Amino acid sequence: MSYEAINLAGKFGLFTEQWQPKVVAEMNDYQFKLARLEGDFIWHDHKDTDETFIVIEGYLRIDFRDGAVRIGPGEMFVVPRGVEHKPFAEGEVKLMLIEPRGARNTGEEGGERTAANDVWI
Amino acid sequence: MSYEAINLAGKFGLFTEQWQPKVVAEMNDYQFKLARLEGDFIWHDHKDTDETFIVIEGYLRIDFRDGAVRIGPGEMFVVPRGVEHKPFAEGEVKLMLIEPRGARNTGEEGGERTAANDVWI
Repeated sequence: MSYEAINLAGKFGLFTEQWQPKVVAEMNDYQFKLARLEGDFIWHDHKDTDETFIVIEGYLRIDFRDGAVRIGPGEMFVVPRGVEHKPFAEGEVKLMLIEPRGARNTGEEGGERTAANDVWI
Repeated sequence: MSYEAINLAGKFGLFTEQWQPKVVAEMNDYQFKLARLEGDFIWHDHKDTDETFIVIEGYLRIDFRDGAVRIGPGEMFVVPRGVEHKPFAEGEVKLMLIEPRGARNTGEEGGERTAANDVWI
């Protein structure tokens, strides 16, 4: 049988929308999502789970109430559960998110920036 | 407060041993591990968990009893729980593994190729 790897650049070539994470793989009850982000997001947190960001291209800044982290290509950061954060990207950033299936991009906050969940590409 | 991203290339610069995964981050009860692999590994499976491979540099082949997958830079693959597999790399490959804390590199098989677990870098 022939098995095929998931090519991240190829998957990014299939969509251009920003702030709309797309699922590319699952591991147990976790999902791997690709997203394009640009500009400001809202403050939010995830009460029940940590959230992993791996930057593929561009630069992401995540603001916290007491500081910030800058994540560039080939870098990752895990935001602990319950920690308020606000992603920001001056130019477009391409990244991978890893979090439990069902985790919402706006966390506990909700609102109009909430993206459709479980959209596969 | 100043937060720092985890730079994968920088972490790879800290070790040269092959087949000895190093933990660089945790998300809930999962670990992100970096490893250098080259040559043949043993057939094994993980009864209780899927296992994620993301290739950073080089090429990894994973053989299954009924086929194989080739994973190159910027590509990923999730081996489902209970599926026997055997990693192989003709030249050195640098990759990230994601699996639950405590998962053993040799799975149910054990033996002399079993690496020390929970070694952080």
